[in-house]
Amino acid sequence: MIAILRLGHRVGRDDRISTHCGLVSRALGASSIIYSGDRDDKMVTGINSVSERWGGKFEVGYNANWKKVLMDFKRRKYTIVHLTAYGMPLQEKITAIRKNKNVLVVVGSEKVPGEIYQLADYNISVTSQPHSEIAALALFLYSYNDKALEQKFTKSKIKIIPQEKGKKVEEG
Amino acid sequence: MIAILRLGHRVGRDDRISTHCGLVSRALGASSIIYSGDRDDKMVTGINSVSERWGGKFEVGYNANWKKVLMDFKRRKYTIVHLTAYGMPLQEKITAIRKNKNVLVVVGSEKVPGEIYQLADYNISVTSQPHSEIAALALFLYSYNDKALEQKFTKSKIKIIPQEKGKKVEEG
Repeated sequence: MIAILRLGHRVGRDDRISTHCGLVSRALGASSIIYSGDRDDKMVTGINSVSERWGGKFEVGYNANWKKVLMDFKRRKYTIVHLTAYGMPLQEKITAIRKNKNVLVVVGSEKVPGEIYQLADYNISVTSQPHSEIAALALFLYSYNDKALEQKFTKSKIKIIPQEKGKKVEEG
Repeated sequence: MIAILRLGHRVGRDDRISTHCGLVSRALGASSIIYSGDRDDKMVTGINSVSERWGGKFEVGYNANWKKVLMDFKRRKYTIVHLTAYGMPLQEKITAIRKNKNVLVVVGSEKVPGEIYQLADYNISVTSQPHSEIAALALFLYSYNDKALEQKFTKSKIKIIPQEKGKKVEEG
């Protein structure tokens, strides 16, 4: 199982970035995302409504206490992977990380509590350049799971049928 | 060479998403990004200042006329890859796309002109689920280029030295 913990969400400023983190997690096979930082029911509702239309079983939660969440996952023997530009290169560590069946991926925002670097089993960088937590998360999920792009979403109300040109959507 | 064309940028609403597209393009080895939609000099300046500090040769431009940009790249024999949830799965097409040395990746926003589906050589989906143009772009660049995560950035003023725990930065 893959779970995501998104730290330090800020209502307003981070709405779209945090929403993208949630949708990417769902699309690439994570089973849940937990947000910390500001409580943002509207954003959670938005992601849940995507899941309801597009299918699958993806859980979205909120917890003000990120440390409690992290320690709970540790207790459940999840491997904690913290994505940070300061960490060790993904390509050097991914083989070791893949040996773990249950992973909690921690995705920071502007400021991350220093403690996390110690609590994480792996601090992992997806390049050591400034770019995007959304991209880092996507590339981690894709590297961790060969089938990340081929998820099945049960009970969908809407479905895209891939086309060379144009759009085809099945509804109902 | 890999160039990116980001369509339909909206000042305010898209600032961070479009900035992330630019930074991801730079970090994963594209040589340039051209924005269309609203002119946004502040965003362009922000990305340029990242390049100046973190090194490398990444060009950022703006052109109100996306179609002219696209046709110019076509004339220069670039393969046009349009990223869209409606397109054919990345994993089915990437081997064919990789045979082309020069690629223009077109990244849409909320509304994309229907014409683009016809003008593109490939309409490519990174899953057929709703998620993030930033994630789609990152996964495309990573799939297109094995060395995407190992770019060198010359003349940098700042550099991260990867660490197992904590942060190490070299400046100057």
